[in-house]
Amino acid sequence: MLLVKNIGVLQTPLGVHSLKGSAQAENLKLRNAAVAISDGKITAIYKDGELPKLSDDIQVIDAENCLVTPGLVDCHTHLVFGGWRHNEIPLKLGGATYLDILKAGGGILDTVRHTREMSEDELYFKSKGFIDEMLHLGVTTVESKSGYGLNLKDELKMLRVNKRLDKNTPIDVVSTFLGAHAIPPEYSDRPDEYIDYLCEVVLPEVKRNDLAEFCDVFCEDSVFDVAQSKKMLLAGRKLGLGSKIHADEIEAIGGAVLAGELGAVSAEHLIATDERGMDSMREGGVTAALLPATSFYLGKTYAPAREMIKKGIPVAIASDFNPGSCPSLNLQFAINLGYLKYRMLPEEILTAVTLNAACAIARGESIGTIEIGKQADLVIWNAPNFEMVCYRFGSNQIKKVIKKGEILQ
Amino acid sequence: MLLVKNIGVLQTPLGVHSLKGSAQAENLKLRNAAVAISDGKITAIYKDGELPKLSDDIQVIDAENCLVTPGLVDCHTHLVFGGWRHNEIPLKLGGATYLDILKAGGGILDTVRHTREMSEDELYFKSKGFIDEMLHLGVTTVESKSGYGLNLKDELKMLRVNKRLDKNTPIDVVSTFLGAHAIPPEYSDRPDEYIDYLCEVVLPEVKRNDLAEFCDVFCEDSVFDVAQSKKMLLAGRKLGLGSKIHADEIEAIGGAVLAGELGAVSAEHLIATDERGMDSMREGGVTAALLPATSFYLGKTYAPAREMIKKGIPVAIASDFNPGSCPSLNLQFAINLGYLKYRMLPEEILTAVTLNAACAIARGESIGTIEIGKQADLVIWNAPNFEMVCYRFGSNQIKKVIKKGEILQ
Repeated sequence: MLLVKNIGVLQTPLGVHSLKGSAQAENLKLRNAAVAISDGKITAIYKDGELPKLSDDIQVIDAENCLVTPGLVDCHTHLVFGGWRHNEIPLKLGGATYLDILKAGGGILDTVRHTREMSEDELYFKSKGFIDEMLHLGVTTVESKSGYGLNLKDELKMLRVNKRLDKNTPIDVVSTFLGAHAIPPEYSDRPDEYIDYLCEVVLPEVKRNDLAEFCDVFCEDSVFDVAQSKKMLLAGRKLGLGSKIHADEIEAIGGAVLAGELGAVSAEHLIATDERGMDSMREGGVTAALLPATSFYLGKTYAPAREMIKKGIPVAIASDFNPGSCPSLNLQFAINLGYLKYRMLPEEILTAVTLNAACAIARGESIGTIEIGKQADLVIWNAPNFEMVCYRFGSNQIKKVIKKGEILQ
Repeated sequence: MLLVKNIGVLQTPLGVHSLKGSAQAENLKLRNAAVAISDGKITAIYKDGELPKLSDDIQVIDAENCLVTPGLVDCHTHLVFGGWRHNEIPLKLGGATYLDILKAGGGILDTVRHTREMSEDELYFKSKGFIDEMLHLGVTTVESKSGYGLNLKDELKMLRVNKRLDKNTPIDVVSTFLGAHAIPPEYSDRPDEYIDYLCEVVLPEVKRNDLAEFCDVFCEDSVFDVAQSKKMLLAGRKLGLGSKIHADEIEAIGGAVLAGELGAVSAEHLIATDERGMDSMREGGVTAALLPATSFYLGKTYAPAREMIKKGIPVAIASDFNPGSCPSLNLQFAINLGYLKYRMLPEEILTAVTLNAACAIARGESIGTIEIGKQADLVIWNAPNFEMVCYRFGSNQIKKVIKKGEILQ
């Protein structure tokens, strides 16, 4: 048994055995607490200085009166990729738009080229470096999307990397198939044919090799329209893959509405979403996965987080780590932006990066809160409370990470 | 002798033996380079694979084909302070302004209260934690201001902490007396009398104990006006202290103009500065020390960096680490903002955090560039070039720090 004792404040959202997130600013806060862990699960929670009887076979960790929360869940990343995109800096400073760069063969197509060129092993070791750093920053579960292969061979290669990362590192990696991330050069101007290729050729292989749990699509003007997105997600669903959708990032073309209609587990980005989209999401029980560091990096406006919460939509916050629009894997910085830009309460932010993020990847039953029976994913912070985590930025405020009852650092 | 070899790119501004910064986008870039160091100084620089004859008494560091730049210089911080200010979050989210919080006895007065309550040792150990982290993030020289004591005893206490940090840690700490940071409760509504107290009572003791190299003042509407600021800086100058000034952060009340007239080494903040201020700064040879992370944290506009550069004013970038308006000590994040918000070129940004920052603390002759004869303060980056440092954010991209020829990590 492992006992985490001397917890100054244990703070957690509540929602065990629920697959739905919460739009309420409610956290449980216990003072002078302790958590007992056996076989990787939380078995008891103590407060006000209570402790179980200690015996020799109990390993004890002293939280030194600091804050303890559930391990962070990063529910939207593109962490497997070749190359980087720092070479776009002179173009961007010169005033080139995203479309200018794309037309010159750059942008996402540059990442696709580099990803295709890399071997599975090369991609694995590059991504593993990111995973190590994320763990260090308090992330105990991460979602990882494909979408820089854009053909059978390279999409499967990316998804195999996800599987290896999940198997060989302490972090849980949830794999999402995002073949419909962009239109590859081979299909330019033929998005319908590409969607058919994905549905008929790639998706069945993804399923046969058990390489993804979710299917995602980039529903946006000049990428995939609502009809194409729906086709893609329904094809995934037919094979048992849950639905996620990149929706209303630039224009509200109906992505969030579709998410609600399909009862997707999450709609993501949502910077431009409108009343109709939000109503549909709420009715469909969709979690909104917001990506503030992308707004920050691109200098865009921020998604209407407060409005969503007011409407009763569970809001999750994720890093969106990717080489184009958000070259940061630091979920703690996204937490800072949750406070500074979304103006969310610290309690809402903690829920957004734990329980609601877990619900955005259909893991709400097993992770995302500190409750008896849940997987023992905890972080001990170098901070007295979660307000401090929201306020200080630029420093890693993690002291120790506990994953499935094992101490990682 | 120490030899840093296998440098993929050695990038540095040039300006040895100059006390003036540069407004030019010029960096020296050497490929496949090496740097020889003896007695803490740079003694030779090699390029294109050249190397000196190696003998047994040479210690060799392999830069593994990465980028090497001068050590970073953080020329504006308030790193010695008591308490934090995360407790202001609910007030701020509730819509309270800076002035509301100040009137309720919070804001900077809260920090003053906590700083006064702490012993010199307590302050020293707290600040030393920050210094250790800054070194880890590539900062090899840091300026540190007093200004949370606001009386003789506690201002001297803060400055003694600066001196101890300088002596006992590898970093060089440049100490600045900022007694005129705010009007203390004891002098509320009597700023003139407070300035007299600082000039007649505190400053002579600062000098007698050799506790500061610069005198600084917060010249701003509702703090100290131009006449009071001038009096303060001239009193400092009479005792041999160089002049720095917090100018035009909120309103252009004449702080930058004064900086130029006095030939201050730096004017800092400058968000609201105008044509007159910039002209005066250029004529007076003043370095502009810009603090983008403060604009970020407060959600303010950003100082007109490009305009200043166009006018020929040397621009430095600093962290402004402090518990109120910028609870981040991460200069790498300020580098990111230099690119994203000031739209400065990577070369201009490197100059801003090395040579120009050194000039903002009158250290341009000894640090801030990689040139023969300069102090051997270097950083080896986990990056192939400085574009990567500007582009990736949220990760510490430092691989190794060399301070006065000693390897720190």
